[in-house]
Amino acid sequence: MSKMLQPGATIGILGGGQLGRMLALAAHKLGLKVHIYCPDPQSPAFEVTPHKTIALYEDRKALKAFAETVDLVTYEFENVPAATAKAILEFNTPLAPGAKALATAQDRLIEKTFIEQAGVPVAPFANVESQAELESAVQTIGLPAVLKTRRFGYDGKGQKFLRQPEDVTGAFKELGENPCVLEGFVSFDREISVIIARTASGETAAYDPAENVHQDAILHTSTVPAQISDHVKQDALGAAAKIANALDYVGVMGVEFFVTDANDHLVVNEIAPRVHNSGHWTEAACLISQFEQHMRAIANWPLGDTTRHSDVVMTNLLGNDINQVTEAPTPHTMVHHYGKYEVRPGRKLGHINQISPKNS
Amino acid sequence: MSKMLQPGATIGILGGGQLGRMLALAAHKLGLKVHIYCPDPQSPAFEVTPHKTIALYEDRKALKAFAETVDLVTYEFENVPAATAKAILEFNTPLAPGAKALATAQDRLIEKTFIEQAGVPVAPFANVESQAELESAVQTIGLPAVLKTRRFGYDGKGQKFLRQPEDVTGAFKELGENPCVLEGFVSFDREISVIIARTASGETAAYDPAENVHQDAILHTSTVPAQISDHVKQDALGAAAKIANALDYVGVMGVEFFVTDANDHLVVNEIAPRVHNSGHWTEAACLISQFEQHMRAIANWPLGDTTRHSDVVMTNLLGNDINQVTEAPTPHTMVHHYGKYEVRPGRKLGHINQISPKNS
Repeated sequence: MSKMLQPGATIGILGGGQLGRMLALAAHKLGLKVHIYCPDPQSPAFEVTPHKTIALYEDRKALKAFAETVDLVTYEFENVPAATAKAILEFNTPLAPGAKALATAQDRLIEKTFIEQAGVPVAPFANVESQAELESAVQTIGLPAVLKTRRFGYDGKGQKFLRQPEDVTGAFKELGENPCVLEGFVSFDREISVIIARTASGETAAYDPAENVHQDAILHTSTVPAQISDHVKQDALGAAAKIANALDYVGVMGVEFFVTDANDHLVVNEIAPRVHNSGHWTEAACLISQFEQHMRAIANWPLGDTTRHSDVVMTNLLGNDINQVTEAPTPHTMVHHYGKYEVRPGRKLGHINQISPKNS
Repeated sequence: MSKMLQPGATIGILGGGQLGRMLALAAHKLGLKVHIYCPDPQSPAFEVTPHKTIALYEDRKALKAFAETVDLVTYEFENVPAATAKAILEFNTPLAPGAKALATAQDRLIEKTFIEQAGVPVAPFANVESQAELESAVQTIGLPAVLKTRRFGYDGKGQKFLRQPEDVTGAFKELGENPCVLEGFVSFDREISVIIARTASGETAAYDPAENVHQDAILHTSTVPAQISDHVKQDALGAAAKIANALDYVGVMGVEFFVTDANDHLVVNEIAPRVHNSGHWTEAACLISQFEQHMRAIANWPLGDTTRHSDVVMTNLLGNDINQVTEAPTPHTMVHHYGKYEVRPGRKLGHINQISPKNS
């Protein structure tokens, strides 16, 4: 199988945002070096390592120099262009998670088809490449439904909720006439997510499911344990493992679920082939955070312990919320500040974890 | 009082070893930038920030450029030359912990005198600046005793154990005819330490005492909770606070104690005006590690929570022990690798924390 990277090896990270930064900090804890590649000169991850490349993801020359400097490439975001991933491999540098995970997660149609074929339930969906196809899909799937661009959506962007027939009119145009999927609206009781790690050797380890609350389509809190039955918990962990195995996945992945039917069933909302905002709680309530686990997985080390020692609530700090970090801390509270240069309303700038003794 | 440093400010750290590296990682978690100053071009802390100066501590020109770039200077080792500390202040940059803490901790005679005057017990001691003074001190203090150089001792270096009269002959010369102290040997039941933080505003917060086991005069394990009575624990916490207050200390400090007289009394062995190896357990068993707490203290933020959520054993990885980090982890185990370039026998290269549910 894949060889084990030794401490002293260099991990290349595509993307210099908070996830890249937290991955870099975790890599350093394991004695690994980090090279950050990002087009934005103000990337917060540039502050935590001496090795950086400021270049476009399409810049083959820069990619070549980067790939030749590092022992393995990973990424903090799923929208790494396919050509970038391909170039890394052409320059003989391993990429983890692999190109299949990227290709699957980048396109909602491919993603949903894949998950369904892996034997895990998703909401009913249909491909939509024109207004006519949208209208026909609405006939099949019914309303309410959600029209989503197949690519480049995040935090609720690239989506339109279709409640009644009038909303359907012109909806395809409103989303820029991009290829879309129509998803049947899932009336859910709660949203949960599972953070799972898998190594090239096929070892998997998952953390307890988190219960997520969104505000304005952006994650607000993750609470662990989630208020779900043990069988739903086991179903979620099983589904995450099925998807990770089917993708031959290497690294940490987030799987988001809707819990439906009086808290009794699950459908997958989406997967993220990377560390995930709803896993930031692991930093405070587990010995090994999702970031460190990702490094262990891609370095092909034995996975770390995912046991949770405490109950926990993670709260995102958006925009001016960030000013809380220098305030008097409440008991059992940890803050994480991403070191971003600019405070903008709604921008993710940090998070807070509050733990309490484990109840369940 | 001192102003509060905001995220985005730069902390200058004198010293680029593992403590500087772990301080830098903690600073990054709080959105602070870090500039490492160290003469050794292979300093492991250079790998975790883009800002570094490779220069001697005596290089005033380099110190000036460094001091002018950063918002505050701290250090990872107590042997920062007095002239270096003075220069930083001359260049109008705050230094924390302050020059008084450095001067006190750098000289065992000053240190012991200071602690005694603060009302905290130490072993009987005497100043020794010649073989004649040594012989006279032995008359007063008795044998066994330990002769220690007043300056630059660490991990058992610069010490000679005097068991019987023959050991006294030539002992002063053996330690290089440097100024020494003779300390009465303390027959102790166990060794403990307290990690305490203090802010410029006088707020203090201490972690639970750790019980330390040394091998070949180097820390081997720290176990928390220590097997001590509640009154010894309270005495240790009280003594640490007394010393921190008397020093007008700002930052995290380690205070080492001997527990004597059938586990009933304490004497201070020594203080370290910095984060301390016997506090590495806080990284795994508390929400806020000693490193993060040090950053909060010197940035004049409210101190973080020192509650311990788990029992813990920290084990140092010396020399080839470091190869354990990529082995299959035992349950509830976290490793930390310092990213040092060279493996040498006895060199501190990493540590392991193993936690278990809290019993006391």
